[in-house]
Amino acid sequence: MRIALLTGGGDCPGLNAVIYAAVKKGINHYGDEFIGFLNGWRGVLDNQFIPLTLEKIDGIQLKGGTILHSSRTNVKKIPGGIEKVQEVLKQNKIDALIALGGDDTQSVTLFLAEHGINAIGVPKTIDNDINGTDATFGFDTAVMIATEAVDRIHTTADSHNRVVVVEVMGRDAGWIAMAAGVAGGAHVTLVPEKPIDLDHVCALLKYNYDHGKHYGVVVVAEGCHLPEGGQVTGSAEVDAFGHARLSGIGEALAELIEKKTGFETRSVNLGHTQRGGVPTAYDRLLGQRYGLHAIDMVHEAKWGRIAVLKGTDITDITIKEAVATNRRLDQRFFDVIDGVQAKV
Amino acid sequence: MRIALLTGGGDCPGLNAVIYAAVKKGINHYGDEFIGFLNGWRGVLDNQFIPLTLEKIDGIQLKGGTILHSSRTNVKKIPGGIEKVQEVLKQNKIDALIALGGDDTQSVTLFLAEHGINAIGVPKTIDNDINGTDATFGFDTAVMIATEAVDRIHTTADSHNRVVVVEVMGRDAGWIAMAAGVAGGAHVTLVPEKPIDLDHVCALLKYNYDHGKHYGVVVVAEGCHLPEGGQVTGSAEVDAFGHARLSGIGEALAELIEKKTGFETRSVNLGHTQRGGVPTAYDRLLGQRYGLHAIDMVHEAKWGRIAVLKGTDITDITIKEAVATNRRLDQRFFDVIDGVQAKV
Amino acid sequence: MRIALLTGGGDCPGLNAVIYAAVKKGINHYGDEFIGFLNGWRGVLDNQFIPLTLEKIDGIQLKGGTILHSSRTNVKKIPGGIEKVQEVLKQNKIDALIALGGDDTQSVTLFLAEHGINAIGVPKTIDNDINGTDATFGFDTAVMIATEAVDRIHTTADSHNRVVVVEVMGRDAGWIAMAAGVAGGAHVTLVPEKPIDLDHVCALLKYNYDHGKHYGVVVVAEGCHLPEGGQVTGSAEVDAFGHARLSGIGEALAELIEKKTGFETRSVNLGHTQRGGVPTAYDRLLGQRYGLHAIDMVHEAKWGRIAVLKGTDITDITIKEAVATNRRLDQRFFDVIDGVQAKV
Amino acid sequence: MRIALLTGGGDCPGLNAVIYAAVKKGINHYGDEFIGFLNGWRGVLDNQFIPLTLEKIDGIQLKGGTILHSSRTNVKKIPGGIEKVQEVLKQNKIDALIALGGDDTQSVTLFLAEHGINAIGVPKTIDNDINGTDATFGFDTAVMIATEAVDRIHTTADSHNRVVVVEVMGRDAGWIAMAAGVAGGAHVTLVPEKPIDLDHVCALLKYNYDHGKHYGVVVVAEGCHLPEGGQVTGSAEVDAFGHARLSGIGEALAELIEKKTGFETRSVNLGHTQRGGVPTAYDRLLGQRYGLHAIDMVHEAKWGRIAVLKGTDITDITIKEAVATNRRLDQRFFDVIDGVQAKV
Repeated sequence: MRIALLTGGGDCPGLNAVIYAAVKKGINHYGDEFIGFLNGWRGVLDNQFIPLTLEKIDGIQLKGGTILHSSRTNVKKIPGGIEKVQEVLKQNKIDALIALGGDDTQSVTLFLAEHGINAIGVPKTIDNDINGTDATFGFDTAVMIATEAVDRIHTTADSHNRVVVVEVMGRDAGWIAMAAGVAGGAHVTLVPEKPIDLDHVCALLKYNYDHGKHYGVVVVAEGCHLPEGGQVTGSAEVDAFGHARLSGIGEALAELIEKKTGFETRSVNLGHTQRGGVPTAYDRLLGQRYGLHAIDMVHEAKWGRIAVLKGTDITDITIKEAVATNRRLDQRFFDVIDGVQAKV
Repeated sequence: MRIALLTGGGDCPGLNAVIYAAVKKGINHYGDEFIGFLNGWRGVLDNQFIPLTLEKIDGIQLKGGTILHSSRTNVKKIPGGIEKVQEVLKQNKIDALIALGGDDTQSVTLFLAEHGINAIGVPKTIDNDINGTDATFGFDTAVMIATEAVDRIHTTADSHNRVVVVEVMGRDAGWIAMAAGVAGGAHVTLVPEKPIDLDHVCALLKYNYDHGKHYGVVVVAEGCHLPEGGQVTGSAEVDAFGHARLSGIGEALAELIEKKTGFETRSVNLGHTQRGGVPTAYDRLLGQRYGLHAIDMVHEAKWGRIAVLKGTDITDITIKEAVATNRRLDQRFFDVIDGVQAKV
Repeated sequence: MRIALLTGGGDCPGLNAVIYAAVKKGINHYGDEFIGFLNGWRGVLDNQFIPLTLEKIDGIQLKGGTILHSSRTNVKKIPGGIEKVQEVLKQNKIDALIALGGDDTQSVTLFLAEHGINAIGVPKTIDNDINGTDATFGFDTAVMIATEAVDRIHTTADSHNRVVVVEVMGRDAGWIAMAAGVAGGAHVTLVPEKPIDLDHVCALLKYNYDHGKHYGVVVVAEGCHLPEGGQVTGSAEVDAFGHARLSGIGEALAELIEKKTGFETRSVNLGHTQRGGVPTAYDRLLGQRYGLHAIDMVHEAKWGRIAVLKGTDITDITIKEAVATNRRLDQRFFDVIDGVQAKV
Repeated sequence: MRIALLTGGGDCPGLNAVIYAAVKKGINHYGDEFIGFLNGWRGVLDNQFIPLTLEKIDGIQLKGGTILHSSRTNVKKIPGGIEKVQEVLKQNKIDALIALGGDDTQSVTLFLAEHGINAIGVPKTIDNDINGTDATFGFDTAVMIATEAVDRIHTTADSHNRVVVVEVMGRDAGWIAMAAGVAGGAHVTLVPEKPIDLDHVCALLKYNYDHGKHYGVVVVAEGCHLPEGGQVTGSAEVDAFGHARLSGIGEALAELIEKKTGFETRSVNLGHTQRGGVPTAYDRLLGQRYGLHAIDMVHEAKWGRIAVLKGTDITDITIKEAVATNRRLDQRFFDVIDGVQAKV
């Protein structure tokens, strides 16, 4: 078969691992031929692609980023976009399409599959919030980077008897914050699923100061918000350059904590460092397992479906189910955060 | 309740995270009181323990090793051992025991639970081979360390046009080898579940040399063996000091490869570095989740049961089921290894 | 002798290594007795200290931060401060004082030494800009952390065809920016010693885009400024809480680059993560060497002097010389930055 | 000018950084043209080389190994070797040669320079033992890797109340052992410059056990030896495959310690992992500085000289001086090791 791959949306450590494994097994075991469209759906619209050979993919499974590059181009918002995509795929004699991406990307994959294109999906979100899968690649790397930063913040906060607020990624779901906060031993962990209770935050920090530890570490997801003032994070704002501001809540929260407690408080926003660089071993293995399953799905004609992790199995569900809703933290994880914090 | 903890067997990154979370929630949410026996079951036999307070556990969830130390003392092999354990627990007015350990430890926990002691287990194996759980803490850290070593070996092997054999842990099950081999992009990955096919190994390595890459990286689990000669690894031998030799197969395999292919071949045995040091974020979170569930199990009187991970849930099964058999790699993972290797 | 130590100013990985080695050798080889004042000079003013025994320092050489905590209290700005310090030292029968700190701290050490107190200094600055020494501990750790972040930024910038500006520490001197920029392969490296030439910056970035690489990484020191508009960085501003804002130039520069080039541009400010956490091996060794030399200086009565690294030697100079001026990047390092960048 | 580069001897993190910087500045600032001989001197003998263009070197400064590969071919031991080298250089119209390598490589460079070839050297040794330079690239990376391993060994040794012997590189000089031992907080650090005093080693380890710490970490250089038995390490032996065995002393020492103290003792040999992989920021900067200076040396016709680090300067000395002797640890560093250990 002649198969096309593309990567859409924000980049994510492990994308290259998926590409590697799908192409490797496709060529070696099925005798497939591969091309990769560049820059997500934009590359399809522009008919811009590269051949994906064994030479081209050699060693990429160890590397971050995506050799196919990415974009946030949303085909469905472009008049005639879908038709153009269908046309380009036909013109390049593509037998099947494997789309790596999040909700936006997969809603296009689903549309295509419903309109006669042989398309399947591989879920991609650093936020770990795609429905129907236990874990997505890239998440573990982001958590590792965030946790290492939290580890480092402990010593500097302690030496200076300060509170430091660490803002991590997570617009709608607090998976990264929960994991990095609990793994990093943060004294307070705040997630978008629950409005921030400032009194409780300050009480947790005071507990430290009352028990001989004159510092505090707070992990807050970028999507967190205060109850009264609504969304504090700047993510709602679109700046002069047309892109949403990434930061906001960490700095705002630091000021509120300092005002309320009198503790010297600082903030740091980990930003883009969380999604770049070499993937963890976990993500490299998971990405390759997704890739191997994806190529099997193609040869089993599982169009409109998406690969997922369930326990120790890679299997698949309908894209419809995957994009139906976001997977957010539930009570089990609120209990984890609560269980390892101080009691105040 | 007055609860005792102990850690038995080889140490494992994440043990302290379990202790931390169980004690933290136990004191804060249930009003429990804790002691920790030292050096595994030996500490029970010797009635040697320390109180586990909030001060004592502060920050330990971020650290490797076990503050309770460990030993390989097997109570069941000591005449009168079980009786002594029962007596010491009674004497210290222990209401419940949480035993962290592998098969050996848990078989004692099970025995105690069957004989009227309120005991539950938390699974511990760096090899990830305990039955009934998707993952054990410590495994991810071991894989990370092994994968970083494999990453480093690529460049030195490449610069010198050599084959390098990396021996990793895994006596009965190849989880670490499979994960580090696939994640690290090894050209050959060998696991104890399958005898080594030397011809196939050499063919995979020759493929590299025939395709412009004049080096090779082989990952081999310590428990691997050759078909004809039986167990090559020294793990069967007991040395002059009464302990089993850890190394063997890596060095032996390197010699066989060099002989058969003529490629300059070296070996390295990662040894104890794989089980020490700071746990990954994954293992710190997983360990704490195990600990939180363990203390809940105690308060639900789930004696004779052991905490396990199933998908994204921490739940529990009988210890009997957990120790019934080893969890080894199955066809799904052989296919992963096969899928990402060259085709020869 | 009865010797006091203190750590002043911003914390710095390696402080504990200095304390460890000075106390270890002092007790073991000279039979000294040690106390450590807490929170820098504030602890002296408040007569707040802890005994430093072999037990207390055990293992601290491996850890970041400072077990003595720190503050920015400037004795000379406090009426009667110096007298109070002299009094407290006398009262505690201190035979000699070892002060670990930067310019502010050492100007007090110098004053004390000139007024009859047996005091010596150990230089501490994460910015590496103390006069008269080849390197200060903490700097290598900061550069390592910044370089790892730059490494990670490459892949995400590349995947998204973006420019990313990474703001690192360095108010007056660009050592961290120079080292992390060159080591991290940044396309543009900007240091406070030279005003930013925006046209040149944009030309360097365009070079990439004209040569098939559609992304760029810029490293900028927090103290950098634009020629026309003077100091852009917010470090001049003092915020509502009375402390200088740390961030500014990175974000400002990103906007200017995006405006001028049309390339999508983002920024990230590494902030406090650069000074926390486990020191590199280099800094742990260097810190211990400083500590060993410091205790020798005490026993050689080298009052008013400060330990320095010259080549592979630890030796000492007068504190006067050390605080006379800042050590900034010179032409040798401008040539390094220039030599590894593109030619435009 | 038309310039050739080559890398000889064992690989070393930072080689690619040297190549990158020399070629980058050579092309951009001097208008030079470059080729790189493959596999050290063997590539010259075989007239095997690749062009080194800006595209070819892009990004290599961040990577370990050497894109030119290496070998231990010693031209002087091959009859007619030198003549062949001279002929190949002439035939390829090489105006100047930059040889990156250790003593063996540089003795050839020197010979060539003395016989009319325009040749200069860049020192390369992971052991840091080349005469006349404060530091060589690769050493910092090796120390970092060894220190991380020592860090990890602490927790596992502690958990099991064991002694663990960590064998690190260093045949003639103990720089890596000294740095990793001191930085890693080893309880005993052993270097080839001094015969092992087994009684003292055991006394240091007993000190721990007598002071409440029931474990020990020993760092030993591969080249260490016992006084009575002469060289214990296998490095003197040549095995069946014609290469020297790398390991030996660590395992032997562990057995002797266990016998003498009764403490359970294990050993681990870090082997090849110490020289592979991504260089530290320090080594990437140092390597690039060496490369920039090397290309300047070429344009200043400094034939027969070699680049060296002196304090914060890169300068040069004669190759004759550099190869005259090995740089070994001296009293200053014995005092460092002694100063941070226990006193027994």
